[in-house]
Amino acid sequence: MAQPNDFFFTGLHLTGNTSNSLGSKVTPANVVQIPGLNTLGISLARIDYAPWGINPPHTHPRASEILTVLEGTLFVGFVTSNPENRLISKVLNKGDVFVFPVGLVHFQQNVGHGNAVAMAALSSQNPGVITIANAVFGSNLPISSEVLAKAFQLDKYMVDRIQAQF
Amino acid sequence: MAQPNDFFFTGLHLTGNTSNSLGSKVTPANVVQIPGLNTLGISLARIDYAPWGINPPHTHPRASEILTVLEGTLFVGFVTSNPENRLISKVLNKGDVFVFPVGLVHFQQNVGHGNAVAMAALSSQNPGVITIANAVFGSNLPISSEVLAKAFQLDKYMVDRIQAQF
Amino acid sequence: MAQPNDFFFTGLHLTGNTSNSLGSKVTPANVVQIPGLNTLGISLARIDYAPWGINPPHTHPRASEILTVLEGTLFVGFVTSNPENRLISKVLNKGDVFVFPVGLVHFQQNVGHGNAVAMAALSSQNPGVITIANAVFGSNLPISSEVLAKAFQLDKYMVDRIQAQF
Amino acid sequence: MAQPNDFFFTGLHLTGNTSNSLGSKVTPANVVQIPGLNTLGISLARIDYAPWGINPPHTHPRASEILTVLEGTLFVGFVTSNPENRLISKVLNKGDVFVFPVGLVHFQQNVGHGNAVAMAALSSQNPGVITIANAVFGSNLPISSEVLAKAFQLDKYMVDRIQAQF
Amino acid sequence: MAQPNDFFFTGLHLTGNTSNSLGSKVTPANVVQIPGLNTLGISLARIDYAPWGINPPHTHPRASEILTVLEGTLFVGFVTSNPENRLISKVLNKGDVFVFPVGLVHFQQNVGHGNAVAMAALSSQNPGVITIANAVFGSNLPISSEVLAKAFQLDKYMVDRIQAQF
Amino acid sequence: MAQPNDFFFTGLHLTGNTSNSLGSKVTPANVVQIPGLNTLGISLARIDYAPWGINPPHTHPRASEILTVLEGTLFVGFVTSNPENRLISKVLNKGDVFVFPVGLVHFQQNVGHGNAVAMAALSSQNPGVITIANAVFGSNLPISSEVLAKAFQLDKYMVDRIQAQF
Repeated sequence: MAQPNDFFFTGLHLTGNTSNSLGSKVTPANVVQIPGLNTLGISLARIDYAPWGINPPHTHPRASEILTVLEGTLFVGFVTSNPENRLISKVLNKGDVFVFPVGLVHFQQNVGHGNAVAMAALSSQNPGVITIANAVFGSNLPISSEVLAKAFQLDKYMVDRIQAQF
Repeated sequence: MAQPNDFFFTGLHLTGNTSNSLGSKVTPANVVQIPGLNTLGISLARIDYAPWGINPPHTHPRASEILTVLEGTLFVGFVTSNPENRLISKVLNKGDVFVFPVGLVHFQQNVGHGNAVAMAALSSQNPGVITIANAVFGSNLPISSEVLAKAFQLDKYMVDRIQAQF
Repeated sequence: MAQPNDFFFTGLHLTGNTSNSLGSKVTPANVVQIPGLNTLGISLARIDYAPWGINPPHTHPRASEILTVLEGTLFVGFVTSNPENRLISKVLNKGDVFVFPVGLVHFQQNVGHGNAVAMAALSSQNPGVITIANAVFGSNLPISSEVLAKAFQLDKYMVDRIQAQF
Repeated sequence: MAQPNDFFFTGLHLTGNTSNSLGSKVTPANVVQIPGLNTLGISLARIDYAPWGINPPHTHPRASEILTVLEGTLFVGFVTSNPENRLISKVLNKGDVFVFPVGLVHFQQNVGHGNAVAMAALSSQNPGVITIANAVFGSNLPISSEVLAKAFQLDKYMVDRIQAQF
Repeated sequence: MAQPNDFFFTGLHLTGNTSNSLGSKVTPANVVQIPGLNTLGISLARIDYAPWGINPPHTHPRASEILTVLEGTLFVGFVTSNPENRLISKVLNKGDVFVFPVGLVHFQQNVGHGNAVAMAALSSQNPGVITIANAVFGSNLPISSEVLAKAFQLDKYMVDRIQAQF
Repeated sequence: MAQPNDFFFTGLHLTGNTSNSLGSKVTPANVVQIPGLNTLGISLARIDYAPWGINPPHTHPRASEILTVLEGTLFVGFVTSNPENRLISKVLNKGDVFVFPVGLVHFQQNVGHGNAVAMAALSSQNPGVITIANAVFGSNLPISSEVLAKAFQLDKYMVDRIQAQF
């Protein structure tokens, strides 16, 4: 029988630990944390940004996203699909809202002087996250350096160096 | 051609005017405000509550909701469908999250000492809102007092009095 | 292996017992009664009305409804969502059909001289029913009288009296 | 602005004219007749059967169906898909209900002594109907007799004769 | 944990055995063969045709189809639903593509001088196939000859003869 | 009124021109080329690969894909989402099939001695393609080199050099 705690989660007031190379931290509240979200097609995430921290280019394979800034100033954008690859971007201040359509590559960058915080909602109870750099250069096993060299127009030595960092 | 402003909205940082009989104010950010949300199945709303203000019992005919408290303390709940009609409820503080499944009657009540603020996400670009009291007692034209008297086990005089207030 | 009885139900010819305070009775034929409806997105219900009986204001959280009158005369209606709250209504005689869009508050009232019977179809194998009065004033545990007093613009004493009846 | 008549249809009480070679008549109430059904995923149809009339083998390309007998006795069935092609069938009397899953070939046959009437609900506002015999032997232009001869294991002369009747 | 073989199938290069009365063979690659297709809404099938072989009139209850000719020449078509029953058809050569909308009766006929091969994609991981002749004349148990005689405007003797062949 | 050509396309037999830096060419057959695919949730694409050509890492924001090799030998793979980022890969020969779930980064590489050809089916009439390298390093306007440097753990000089090539 359904219980209140099946529909409950706590912790979105807590500042995420941004002491990492990207200077950002995502705290999710989706069906993994909240079983009552099953089949409901919605979830939340809090995102913290150190000064000049970024939420790097990523996609959600099963969700559109709408984000609002709770604190600070973010430069945000998404890139349209082939063949245009247009960057649709905006500087957002507190209370501003931006939309990232399903599956498109998007990112946020803290361009203010202090920390920044955003709240994001996603149109799936299990949206998934694909961090582009990790999926492409940091997969386990690695994508062959020949593929990546051609795709990114790099020499293989450079690809190996990038892969080594992930 | 898509422009950044098609995906942008500002104003969710602004305190809603709660000087009304309910002591609450909803500021929506859905496809009416943001045309780029079309077909994306997601939207946001900010809700402000005066001390002891309420967001009265209501439903969203086309969306589930996930809500997080940004400030203050809320008592929130939803009622399951027939035949149980169980109230699933919880006191929420800052950073707590609660889920309201699609179509179920739900409400929030400020039970803290100051103002409260919540951010809600909905699984539709056009979720719709049915405020139960207004739909039932305040419709234009009114539902007949005979129907409402039987439904709510009231005498017709009482129904007329309630309807007169809406 | 699928058997005919998985897709079969009997009993929609039987007059429902309307000896209750509402003067109506719903006989459902959905996935609870007919396992073969699973995933098929459809179900039926027969509704019987004593003279002047009502099917009180209610919603289906997961289904639209189309209803036809088999016998008698019904006054039917639904209320549009905020901010209009318009009542869309009609008197229906035998063979007339009316539609109740997903999630909207709707009702039927027998306004003829004898019994009435309707057949309703719903766009879900598990549509759910929320009887507004029961969900709002008769939930278990009760919604606080403070919330209901504000929502319905009643004094708390009145709310307690209504709740006591459910 | 939505009007009651957008959600209204009349005529499902009228006996359909079954003076035709099949001895049956379908009276639909879908989005063609009721514009308010648009996007709602539901529709109705009344079916009249002369004694020993049939609603011949047909499919709905976009809907499951649930049918109840209002009057008379019907033999009904559907055939499962390849490779089983099992006939799932039942004799239905007044008040009995049967389900025809989306896209499967199904039929009804009046096996009682008088007229029969059924009410069918379909999980689409625009279900479509494919009467198998007409689609296969009566299309305009005709499917080649070579194809039909092989498919139905008939000689071409026989196919031509069947086609000539449609 | 997901493994490559969950997403893999082999055999679509193999010529299907067309030594049968229809002169055709379908080799499917759907969720039955490839468990990783679960929930993904897509599948493939290879179709081989002996000279003058046919893929007889059939429907997919849960999928639209797009087909391309890899080798040979096919006459293909589908029939629109009631009341038009129009045959929409085309002769296809290697590299040509044709679409069969969900649930509609369609077929292919080898009209070239040698074998033909097509690759078909379907918009479901489990599209289902209803071979019209088998479902109608070859079901187990049989549809009554009275129903089929009326539906196809045949005498019962003829129906019995057709049924006997399936 | 629907015409055969609304459902028809020609050209999937033609070898795509792979004289480009990637050594591959995609020839699509989706709703842009075939208007009759509208709402049907399916499309095709032919992919040609020069020896050692690649179809570089990309995603489809609105479709799963199933691919079969018509000629040659491909190394194919997709990367699971965070946090695993596992590469699920396989060498495919003629007649082999592989699945790429919706939204995941995937690629193909010709690892045979001659040209290779694949046919891919996608679960949308308008799947969209996001070539990762182009979206990330070749967008118009560019994503800031600060963002990309942090995301890919590169120095800005290197990012500028990569961007300059797109």
